[in-house]
Amino acid sequence: MHIIINGRREEVRALWREGRRINFIDQRKLPFSFEIYIASDTEGVASAIREMIVRGAPAIGCAAAFGMALAWENGMNIDKAAELLKSTRPTAFDLSYAVQWMIEMAPGLGAMEAAERYTEEIVQKCRRIGEFGASLIKDGDRILTHCNAGALATVDYGTALSPMRVAFEQGKDIFVYVDETRPWLQGSRLTAWELSGEGIPHAVIADNAAGHFLKRDVDLVIVGADRIALNGDFANKIGTYEKAVVAKENGVPFYTAAPLSTFDPSIASGDTIRIEERSSEELRSLGGTRVFPETEEVLNPVFDVTPFGYVTGFITETGIVKPTSIPDTLKRAGIRR
Amino acid sequence: MHIIINGRREEVRALWREGRRINFIDQRKLPFSFEIYIASDTEGVASAIREMIVRGAPAIGCAAAFGMALAWENGMNIDKAAELLKSTRPTAFDLSYAVQWMIEMAPGLGAMEAAERYTEEIVQKCRRIGEFGASLIKDGDRILTHCNAGALATVDYGTALSPMRVAFEQGKDIFVYVDETRPWLQGSRLTAWELSGEGIPHAVIADNAAGHFLKRDVDLVIVGADRIALNGDFANKIGTYEKAVVAKENGVPFYTAAPLSTFDPSIASGDTIRIEERSSEELRSLGGTRVFPETEEVLNPVFDVTPFGYVTGFITETGIVKPTSIPDTLKRAGIRR
Repeated sequence: MHIIINGRREEVRALWREGRRINFIDQRKLPFSFEIYIASDTEGVASAIREMIVRGAPAIGCAAAFGMALAWENGMNIDKAAELLKSTRPTAFDLSYAVQWMIEMAPGLGAMEAAERYTEEIVQKCRRIGEFGASLIKDGDRILTHCNAGALATVDYGTALSPMRVAFEQGKDIFVYVDETRPWLQGSRLTAWELSGEGIPHAVIADNAAGHFLKRDVDLVIVGADRIALNGDFANKIGTYEKAVVAKENGVPFYTAAPLSTFDPSIASGDTIRIEERSSEELRSLGGTRVFPETEEVLNPVFDVTPFGYVTGFITETGIVKPTSIPDTLKRAGIRR
Repeated sequence: MHIIINGRREEVRALWREGRRINFIDQRKLPFSFEIYIASDTEGVASAIREMIVRGAPAIGCAAAFGMALAWENGMNIDKAAELLKSTRPTAFDLSYAVQWMIEMAPGLGAMEAAERYTEEIVQKCRRIGEFGASLIKDGDRILTHCNAGALATVDYGTALSPMRVAFEQGKDIFVYVDETRPWLQGSRLTAWELSGEGIPHAVIADNAAGHFLKRDVDLVIVGADRIALNGDFANKIGTYEKAVVAKENGVPFYTAAPLSTFDPSIASGDTIRIEERSSEELRSLGGTRVFPETEEVLNPVFDVTPFGYVTGFITETGIVKPTSIPDTLKRAGIRR
């Protein structure tokens, strides 16, 4: 992705390796501060995932791959490393997918090489998601997105943002409505920052305003996913379900962009997806400023499940997949339960 | 309404008169600071409305009534006063309703007496809204509300919150999901504070989480309104439309509580309702903390229009009104175009 830093345009990724150090853009600090967090052991990577220094299902998968690689490099017990990493966040499927992939591939490829390959493959899959997805975007389209499913969430290109990057490269005139995405503000802090880096026209809106614009102006919705069931039900950032319902009500096509590593072949539907609840502080304060008192009860589920019936299609690295074609697509890709 | 202040339970209203001074609870400062703003002329009242020291359609109406009364008391030109007050906020219908009511009634009743009577009638209407609305609430119900349509928005009792207050007084076990209500946080700052004062069990949720809870737990939605058209389309806080669509999708009854002074008999549908856009700073900062930079574009419509088809009924001071019965109800109440 391109970023503007000290007035200069540079190219970066959400995370990268230097020897035995894994560097992460600290996503808690964006957009006002560009800081790098460094992990040199599995515990450090686990902290980066748990504390949301790195977030987004595909990027969490890559981080976990490097976390596993560091376990081999540092002589840590592999089962313990796998358990530690998988315990950091419960909803993203890429996390356990990447850990399993490393257990199978690291002995043959070498640990760091395996993690590098996993990451490079995610980046290339995201690029292909962009190419397939760009075909859905017409010149002049106004697109709504929720949360951040950009390069920050996937190492590079993004899932939901990749089709927008490619369409913009192709010279299409697009405009992106960026949901603020409370409580963690992934939209206003991260997606807006990424789109600014690329020069793609956009505006930040309150999550509450998405319906207002879906009724009038939006041509297309594209979001990411954290875990997708075999029937097409999928978990994504809290609020996705509302946007999907309102999109359908207004006849606006709704696409979910994700690599096949986000599809969980072990679950038939979304009913069993575990929804992470995070600290009430995410709603109670912002940047250290308390907005309402501790005595107030808070419920803070950070994902919701959108039933398959609201999904026009999944944009994957193998093409646009209808919910009913998921089992076949996974079988053809060799992904088994 | 009851409030807890310095550990003591007291009874207050959103605004009240002392001689020629109109006192307002400064709603920008809640819940951490309880401050009184005093207006002694029409300009001071206009500022209170414009700056959202007082907000909520019925309370804005009462403020405007006192603003008009002060114009008579201070020898201000009445047409100018009416114009000034009506220019403060464009969406709430109660504002122009109250100004017109004062022009008709003040000469006969005396200016301050007329404003007092207008306000007292709003309070009594809100109480009746509570009594009619409480009949819709069953023991054990879990209720979603959006924004603040409580005593702060209506001088006392509230519109949407009044049925909850009455149901709770009747000993019904209820639980309220309080949408945070970005950008201005009327839910987490004001509604949660009011419900705490009454001891009604509740939790603050992100606006994005409303859909998640509507799918699983919510029995009933009650919101307020800023302007209601003859066909039942209505303007209310941005995000109301999304909640209404998702409520209908899940078979959850959706009620809009408002006095008849919020019904605009001059508009056939919601298509012509002017939607106020407020400063981008409301999204750019949260509790005084800047969350993303000035260079980002923002779109900040603060109301949306919910079409009548999503409304189960309007809870008014004359009973529960179906959208199709609005013209008859207004005619019976002597409200004409």
